[in-house]
Amino acid sequence: MGGWAIAVHGGAGVDPKLPEERQEEARRVLRRCLGVGAAGLRAGLSAVDVVEMVVRELETDPVFNSGRGSALTQEGTVEMEASIMDGRGRRCGAVSGLTTVKNPVSLARLVMDRSPHSYLAFHGAEDFARAQGVEVVDNSYFITDENVRMLKLAKEANSIMYDYRVPIPSADTCSASSTITDGGLHMNGLPISIYAPETVGCVAVDNGGWCAAATSTGGLMNKMSGRIGDSPLIGSGTYACGACAVSCTGEGEAIIRSTLARDVAALMEYKGLGLQEAVDYALKERLDEGKAGLIAVSRNGEVAYGFNTVGMFRGCATEDGFMDVAIW
Amino acid sequence: MGGWAIAVHGGAGVDPKLPEERQEEARRVLRRCLGVGAAGLRAGLSAVDVVEMVVRELETDPVFNSGRGSALTQEGTVEMEASIMDGRGRRCGAVSGLTTVKNPVSLARLVMDRSPHSYLAFHGAEDFARAQGVEVVDNSYFITDENVRMLKLAKEANSIMYDYRVPIPSADTCSASSTITDGGLHMNGLPISIYAPETVGCVAVDNGGWCAAATSTGGLMNKMSGRIGDSPLIGSGTYACGACAVSCTGEGEAIIRSTLARDVAALMEYKGLGLQEAVDYALKERLDEGKAGLIAVSRNGEVAYGFNTVGMFRGCATEDGFMDVAIW
Repeated sequence: MGGWAIAVHGGAGVDPKLPEERQEEARRVLRRCLGVGAAGLRAGLSAVDVVEMVVRELETDPVFNSGRGSALTQEGTVEMEASIMDGRGRRCGAVSGLTTVKNPVSLARLVMDRSPHSYLAFHGAEDFARAQGVEVVDNSYFITDENVRMLKLAKEANSIMYDYRVPIPSADTCSASSTITDGGLHMNGLPISIYAPETVGCVAVDNGGWCAAATSTGGLMNKMSGRIGDSPLIGSGTYACGACAVSCTGEGEAIIRSTLARDVAALMEYKGLGLQEAVDYALKERLDEGKAGLIAVSRNGEVAYGFNTVGMFRGCATEDGFMDVAIW
Repeated sequence: MGGWAIAVHGGAGVDPKLPEERQEEARRVLRRCLGVGAAGLRAGLSAVDVVEMVVRELETDPVFNSGRGSALTQEGTVEMEASIMDGRGRRCGAVSGLTTVKNPVSLARLVMDRSPHSYLAFHGAEDFARAQGVEVVDNSYFITDENVRMLKLAKEANSIMYDYRVPIPSADTCSASSTITDGGLHMNGLPISIYAPETVGCVAVDNGGWCAAATSTGGLMNKMSGRIGDSPLIGSGTYACGACAVSCTGEGEAIIRSTLARDVAALMEYKGLGLQEAVDYALKERLDEGKAGLIAVSRNGEVAYGFNTVGMFRGCATEDGFMDVAIW
């Protein structure tokens, strides 16, 4: 046993021209969250309690794309999704299409603990939230001025690349103007990438060697209503088992087809790789170039990162006092 | 290369007292679908075209729980979901919460081929269906007299086990009367299991050695609106890669936490197991007892089955003329 360890992320696919003050703000939030998580682990909380607590912090802070500060749909509304998995028993819960639940990760936890299902979405998830008595707020609570501006720009740009937040084709132009080639998706003849930037996630291993993971997001800026990404999907955006815990971020579609989180764990369980080896192998062999990143911890208290995007907001802390926060 | 092969399922968790005429009806539908798929493969269609075509047949026939004949929600409506994956490039598409789309698997195929996303749900998926011009019908088209009777019985039974179709607690009784212990979910002190019976699926490998899988379902009888099961989840209910293709059926929640479809493929890719060995290992080591089953094909033209339920409606056909249909 290597003692407890924790890692957090605030999304992959970072804008290379990100202003310095935005970078500092992100580092500040990541440090604060690591502090909260480390204190919990030091006090003997379980890994699953800690990842829920840390992701709640990230959801409540508007800096990243989850909870308050979520990316907006084409209609200018927020539709959030999240998942959580406890390596102990591989128990899991997930939610999608939330519009009023203040902390999606905690509703995912309640789906895991108190519903007979693993995954609830849209009005069914909202009904469950009310039956469970969780805190709900008006949809406007989640919407920040910055994201309203960003949506306006995304809509104006429509079919060209905007920063690292890329608009998607509207339903009626989608078949007419976009095509898929072996080289990826093209729209109006231009290659485009579609990111789910600044999704948040946390993985932790507690003093008992149990691992857990949680991921939460508002999804894509200017996304179609009803779009589901990798974050709520067990095995894609989130996975935990007896060996390790993983949370992913980046282009959801690339993460889904590479079942990225499960693959890291499967490489350890079935191929006998170490944690960092498994992360490196999965990124190199399973993931398309430039698409995503992930954080992981093992039951032995190891921490690993990996990404093939420009950057990934991330941080980690371990029992021996090590703490690191980085973007590039 | 072992030539083409195909397998279909019509769901795991079969009632041990299933009337003989119902058994014969199921065998008849499975044989017809195998014939359709085998003819397509013989004519040189790709695996992904064949699995879509066969699952369309199963959705259109009311015998199994997908498309017409889907299980009903608590409200007496139908909410369908499906997914498809092409092992060539690990491309995939998925849909949930469909209420008017005649063939969910074909909408999943369109999400894969013509949208920038991998997964659309509820109103967003319905909007996409209309933009794509797929055939839509009134929700009543999907509802059969048998399922209306079954829902009535499920609602009357409420908190006791009914046949192999088990009602779920209503939102307001769920926290009060149900608890989760290490032995599983209990409701009013009784252990319960929750099945998604008679989901349909097809896996195929074509003459080029390419594998594909598709799965479609109405979900649970008397399910909460908004519940998502394993069928639309890539890596859980459906998976295909260069090595094999897998489609699962049974208790969605157990399949999700065992990432069952991906695990069969990962055991081949990372542990070097053969197809049947991988199926047996995944069922024994990953899946809770009595919960689910799956069908699989390998790029070498092998077919494998496995289930730990009472039975599974299933069939297979291979290029050398072998055809088999079975329930127990």
